[in-house]
Amino acid sequence: MRMVDLIEKKRDGGQLTTEEINWFVTNYTQDEIPDYQVSAFLMAVFYEDMSDEEITALTLAMAHSGEVIDLSSIEGIKVDKHSTGGVGDTTTLVLAPLVASVGVPVAKMSGRGLGYTGGTLDKLEAIPGFQIELPEEEFTRLVNQSHVAIIGQSGNLAPADKKLYALRDVTATVNSIPLIASSIMSKKIAAGADAIVLDVTTGDGAFMKKLSDARRLAKTMVRIGALTNRQTMAIISDMIQPLGEAIGNSLEVVEAIETLQGKGPADLLEMCYVLGSQMVVLAKKAPDLDQARKLLEEALESGKALAKFREMIRNQGGDDTVVDHPQSLLTAKYEQPFLAKKSGYVTKLVANELGIAAMLLGAGRRTKEEEIDYAVGLKLHKKVGDKVTEGEPLLTIYSNDLELNEVERILEKNIEIGEVAVELPLIHEIITE
Amino acid sequence: MRMVDLIEKKRDGGQLTTEEINWFVTNYTQDEIPDYQVSAFLMAVFYEDMSDEEITALTLAMAHSGEVIDLSSIEGIKVDKHSTGGVGDTTTLVLAPLVASVGVPVAKMSGRGLGYTGGTLDKLEAIPGFQIELPEEEFTRLVNQSHVAIIGQSGNLAPADKKLYALRDVTATVNSIPLIASSIMSKKIAAGADAIVLDVTTGDGAFMKKLSDARRLAKTMVRIGALTNRQTMAIISDMIQPLGEAIGNSLEVVEAIETLQGKGPADLLEMCYVLGSQMVVLAKKAPDLDQARKLLEEALESGKALAKFREMIRNQGGDDTVVDHPQSLLTAKYEQPFLAKKSGYVTKLVANELGIAAMLLGAGRRTKEEEIDYAVGLKLHKKVGDKVTEGEPLLTIYSNDLELNEVERILEKNIEIGEVAVELPLIHEIITE
Repeated sequence: MRMVDLIEKKRDGGQLTTEEINWFVTNYTQDEIPDYQVSAFLMAVFYEDMSDEEITALTLAMAHSGEVIDLSSIEGIKVDKHSTGGVGDTTTLVLAPLVASVGVPVAKMSGRGLGYTGGTLDKLEAIPGFQIELPEEEFTRLVNQSHVAIIGQSGNLAPADKKLYALRDVTATVNSIPLIASSIMSKKIAAGADAIVLDVTTGDGAFMKKLSDARRLAKTMVRIGALTNRQTMAIISDMIQPLGEAIGNSLEVVEAIETLQGKGPADLLEMCYVLGSQMVVLAKKAPDLDQARKLLEEALESGKALAKFREMIRNQGGDDTVVDHPQSLLTAKYEQPFLAKKSGYVTKLVANELGIAAMLLGAGRRTKEEEIDYAVGLKLHKKVGDKVTEGEPLLTIYSNDLELNEVERILEKNIEIGEVAVELPLIHEIITE
Repeated sequence: MRMVDLIEKKRDGGQLTTEEINWFVTNYTQDEIPDYQVSAFLMAVFYEDMSDEEITALTLAMAHSGEVIDLSSIEGIKVDKHSTGGVGDTTTLVLAPLVASVGVPVAKMSGRGLGYTGGTLDKLEAIPGFQIELPEEEFTRLVNQSHVAIIGQSGNLAPADKKLYALRDVTATVNSIPLIASSIMSKKIAAGADAIVLDVTTGDGAFMKKLSDARRLAKTMVRIGALTNRQTMAIISDMIQPLGEAIGNSLEVVEAIETLQGKGPADLLEMCYVLGSQMVVLAKKAPDLDQARKLLEEALESGKALAKFREMIRNQGGDDTVVDHPQSLLTAKYEQPFLAKKSGYVTKLVANELGIAAMLLGAGRRTKEEEIDYAVGLKLHKKVGDKVTEGEPLLTIYSNDLELNEVERILEKNIEIGEVAVELPLIHEIITE
């Protein structure tokens, strides 16, 4: 086989065989095919798309290009959850104990990632003592005992995806639905998932700016899930404004605890119920989404979910008194209100720009080497649709530095107050097959 | 500037500025931009095409990426000719002395190239003693004195084009009209041409399989010529069957001499008159194509053109008695007729396949390192449309090896005899602006 022939076939609208895709992924992973051929191929895929069969073959080939986690010693159906990314996304911290408390095994391996705020691992490390590195046997034992453990990802999961992603990033081929779908699904499969729940975000703050693209991506991944025998469900959620009210690592832990206490933001709680219901159904702990939701509501209201979060923190060496005194995590030197300049209704809170403001405060990493400041971030007091009076605080800035000019400039520009109340959707669609 | 932004701009249908194209070509030539970004860019160009302004900028940037030949010490308008490639294409050997004999300065730098038979340089070297390496002053002196000299190309002409071409070859991005047009035109401009005549071939044996593509390529190059102040004309010629009757280096020299003697194949002569007329007009030696053609017909019929060929051979150290005894060049050990298996009309002579047969005999190079056997090749006795009787020779195989199975297998497969005479066009279109 010659790579140039595969490029030409795709370029001319042809469909690659599973054999051809396996050959390509294997040889590229082993550095036997040069980047310059692969980038031309990726650009041809950008234009020509891929069939479900091709995406399935690519997904499986990438999943098996390195280590594949074997979770078979954990009882039950292991359901993994993935979000295509957003700002102030605290769902995993709430969802993991919530669904574990109704018996869904959550054996989660998370990454750190680059972005506006840290990844799930960074947020957990904001809890004093929390260990994200555990031996595999301990990880398995904890999930079998408590139904939940969250640890750091192994280094060699889906190396083909890592190589391809790095190349896509510098060749303007990131934004291709078959490539995004196979990248996400390959990592979930390599991480040992039996079933997958996806949160595909859309809007200015998300990867998929257009709803129609988000829908295509979600439907593609749900189909690929079926074709790879990993039952998959998805929601399409809005990421025009941030989810919840907290943007920043400790702030998000506090928000997660408050949500598990029944005192969290309504939008975050609703999102957790919707995603959680899908996880419960896929784990066969309830026959349908309605009954699954009832189970979760009971678990939250009875305090079972919060108890599960406490148990998880204790299991992994963390200080579980944070559950009783979450405010103790808020150690930033300065808390400064950002005030409304006029009265009216909040009409715009540009999610990704607020994320950038939080990153400038130190809540996120721009490069792998940067250190995160857990204490800093933004806490929103108003969301889109809320009424506000001139001089009232729109949000509080948590910082360890008094130099806030750049942050305030971004906030000025990306928060709008108008005369008419607008309402943003939270969830556009639920896609179960 | 960042290359990834240029890729994205082109990918989304944008138009690059001259500044962006200059930046890209300069930095790529200096190895400052990696191949993997450039190949993704080339694939985006394949899909998105380029505007005339972009192709012009790319052509000029590539032309100036290395040495640019200065022919200003040669008097008159220097007209270069380029063919996009064919089989048995002997036109340069005839055209150079033909147009020089009416006063058009032909200061030609040729390449060797890979292909079915050798390039113009290889054909000239089939003439004993012919020197293709001359000092620049000697080259200039000869053109000023005799109006014609043909030498080997310098090593550093349009290095950006060389790098890009090598990359296109392995990334399935060769077949793109803006890339082909800029590649050809940049080399002609770097070689010092004031005006350019193009022979764009079409048909199975050519690069452009479809007439519509050949027309687009020809028109693009003529426009780019105007935009770069190099007046350009083109013809679109048919390359379904080979041009002329000879395929092989010495055989083509013999054919060129016979054509200059007025005894050559009609199709080759016609092609030389059409291309030659364009050269004469561009060199301002005649006011229009009709009068240019009359000049050339007179030069050929009077023997002036043949005398010019003799003069060129002598000037460059070659044995000019070949002009009187061309058959002396035919030194192959074996001459074996290939006979018609039935009577009828020749309906098919697949140009590129006959070229491959000649290459297998040793007439062409598959790799740069291979040596050419000047003596071998094919001499056609019948062309498409000719009547043939069973047992009559269709062609003669000139070889230095009796093992002809593979060659004969190709000939069997690619020569067809039918019951109805068909006629192939020679020249589809003449494009003067």
